[in-house]
Amino acid sequence: MATVYITRKEHFNAAHKLWVESWTAEQNLERFGKCANPNWHGHNFNLFVTVKGTPDPVTGLIVDLKELSRLIRARVTDKLDHQNLNLDVDFIRGQMPSTENLAVAIWQQLEAEVAARGGTLHCVKLYETENNYAEYYGE
Amino acid sequence: MATVYITRKEHFNAAHKLWVESWTAEQNLERFGKCANPNWHGHNFNLFVTVKGTPDPVTGLIVDLKELSRLIRARVTDKLDHQNLNLDVDFIRGQMPSTENLAVAIWQQLEAEVAARGGTLHCVKLYETENNYAEYYGE
Amino acid sequence: MATVYITRKEHFNAAHKLWVESWTAEQNLERFGKCANPNWHGHNFNLFVTVKGTPDPVTGLIVDLKELSRLIRARVTDKLDHQNLNLDVDFIRGQMPSTENLAVAIWQQLEAEVAARGGTLHCVKLYETENNYAEYYGE
Amino acid sequence: MATVYITRKEHFNAAHKLWVESWTAEQNLERFGKCANPNWHGHNFNLFVTVKGTPDPVTGLIVDLKELSRLIRARVTDKLDHQNLNLDVDFIRGQMPSTENLAVAIWQQLEAEVAARGGTLHCVKLYETENNYAEYYGE
Amino acid sequence: MATVYITRKEHFNAAHKLWVESWTAEQNLERFGKCANPNWHGHNFNLFVTVKGTPDPVTGLIVDLKELSRLIRARVTDKLDHQNLNLDVDFIRGQMPSTENLAVAIWQQLEAEVAARGGTLHCVKLYETENNYAEYYGE
Amino acid sequence: MATVYITRKEHFNAAHKLWVESWTAEQNLERFGKCANPNWHGHNFNLFVTVKGTPDPVTGLIVDLKELSRLIRARVTDKLDHQNLNLDVDFIRGQMPSTENLAVAIWQQLEAEVAARGGTLHCVKLYETENNYAEYYGE
Repeated sequence: MATVYITRKEHFNAAHKLWVESWTAEQNLERFGKCANPNWHGHNFNLFVTVKGTPDPVTGLIVDLKELSRLIRARVTDKLDHQNLNLDVDFIRGQMPSTENLAVAIWQQLEAEVAARGGTLHCVKLYETENNYAEYYGE
Repeated sequence: MATVYITRKEHFNAAHKLWVESWTAEQNLERFGKCANPNWHGHNFNLFVTVKGTPDPVTGLIVDLKELSRLIRARVTDKLDHQNLNLDVDFIRGQMPSTENLAVAIWQQLEAEVAARGGTLHCVKLYETENNYAEYYGE
Repeated sequence: MATVYITRKEHFNAAHKLWVESWTAEQNLERFGKCANPNWHGHNFNLFVTVKGTPDPVTGLIVDLKELSRLIRARVTDKLDHQNLNLDVDFIRGQMPSTENLAVAIWQQLEAEVAARGGTLHCVKLYETENNYAEYYGE
Repeated sequence: MATVYITRKEHFNAAHKLWVESWTAEQNLERFGKCANPNWHGHNFNLFVTVKGTPDPVTGLIVDLKELSRLIRARVTDKLDHQNLNLDVDFIRGQMPSTENLAVAIWQQLEAEVAARGGTLHCVKLYETENNYAEYYGE
Repeated sequence: MATVYITRKEHFNAAHKLWVESWTAEQNLERFGKCANPNWHGHNFNLFVTVKGTPDPVTGLIVDLKELSRLIRARVTDKLDHQNLNLDVDFIRGQMPSTENLAVAIWQQLEAEVAARGGTLHCVKLYETENNYAEYYGE
Repeated sequence: MATVYITRKEHFNAAHKLWVESWTAEQNLERFGKCANPNWHGHNFNLFVTVKGTPDPVTGLIVDLKELSRLIRARVTDKLDHQNLNLDVDFIRGQMPSTENLAVAIWQQLEAEVAARGGTLHCVKLYETENNYAEYYGE
């Protein structure tokens, strides 16, 4: 019985800023540089969700990738796409919308839903740009 | 005497929205869909600037690519990177920051400067996402 | 009044073979090599459709990209995706489904529809693999 | 003695369908959607094979990458390229040619051959499209 | 009779430096910066060769892409791959191996050969890095 | 307390050859093929450095990515970019500049520096071309 990992890529475009409300503008600029522009900036985010499991002996599939795609859209990317990550997203509210925190929050949106469909969530990998990305394995 | 085209890629990350101030929120949403989110969204933009000219018989170069890169940064991407394209950018102020209009505005920032360095600006190509881009040839 | 070119990327996955029905199997293999496998092979095709026009002075747009995307899907990629290009596609029937012929056939599917929406179709660019692609400009 | 992982990318283009012979056409369509088109569809597959080992103190190499490339071609991609994965491939015959099953079958083609050349096969990663891929680690 | 453009991608890895023999080391460093390192540097070059023509009414092809690939390898990339562009390459000898000059020299290697096979060479596009490339159209 | 992995991409262009000084030219050519061209060849290298840690509860960050970028440039890529890896680089001197050995040497340049900034170096991944790369995890 082989354990195989299957990954689905989705994407969303969003605005954010790195900004601590309890700090002054000067403190935010000193700590976060241009990422603290008060008028926001944004990115094209690419999201890779990896599920592990055993391929079904008849269908050869771990999970239905179309169903996994629908799940990621409903629980994650439809809530993030063309949104302001500091203001508009219920599941990251009250946290800094860094790539690191987003990866963890996306995991929490998906873990139980993937388990309910017979897979095991293995990794959430989130690219903010082609030059930096965060990964979370649920630990 | 060969005419060769040389292209330099630069990039910037920015926020914007498609929003006509004189329209109601409903009109904007109907026309621009999710691109009219009042709280902004954003993109990783990739910019390709093409200069044409004749390679120098000694150096083999049309223009110094490091100098072209510095020029694009000083006149264009330093003014756009981590900025809000509707609010923060002098050279697109008062215009809708669509990819189409941005390509034309970037051309206007660069044309005379490229000519002053002995090249001829040929094309500005601007990717908003990997799925859509605009090109402007100065005509 | 600037003339700007805007491009939308869509994609489809399909099977095909290069095979002339009036030739013998040996002739087909000699001419087309492994592309003439009688049991078919396939590709992930990437399609870039370029429309030229003048940005609207209010909206900054040439055509609505979401509408352009819907048009390409309805007229082209929904008819090609997960299909057999030799057997299943009405608008290429009776022709060899080479990348060259597909680019021309896709142009014919789109030209009048783009014009009806106020743009001018400029180029159809079709990648069969990352190593080869065809372009057609309507001439 | 450092343990280093070295990866070689190869590729192949192939046709397949997701189809269970003992099911009706309706059952196949309901379960696999457009992937069950009876006339096939296809993909450009990208294959990444990772070998782990200790770099040789003189040559700095774990395995000869040209030899690894020849091995992958002889045992895997020459058998898959421009083929029909349901009909033409000895080493996946009788199994559903899903990306998951293909990754496992490719592992089995390579494991002993890599060991015979002094390396340890670590991972087979297979992209079906740029939006989904499977990984197998031999467990 | 449609005119279609077909493009084939090939690649080579090579060393070079930007260095004018009749200048001092200081002059070279001042003009070319780090590209004038006397001990060389190198790149992974990507080459795109575009041929225009009319698809054959029977085969749907302009030129045989496998034959075009063989031609580019024999006349161009086999002579450049894993070579020193300042020292090892007959067809660029005595010229500065800039991307601009290489694009022109590659055109000269291919133009008559493409014509002899019934196509018309349209463009040579050469990427030195993902951030800069040169194009030559034979004019 | 979540453990998250954050990755930064940097790049450099360099010349090298695979060549054992104590071997004859024939032995080097037999073992390394075209990689043993005495006049060097070169590559565009892409470097991915992964750091693991716990996001700060206030800033949401593991390490400052701009600081990580500066560190990688100062300790690694500024020493490699536009250099000859066999001749010019202090931290790989006396070793074969294979991708495998470079990955290990880059790890040694960064491990203590990353720890001094509160992160844990997790992986150094080095692409020599898009077709091969080495990974080192410090073990």
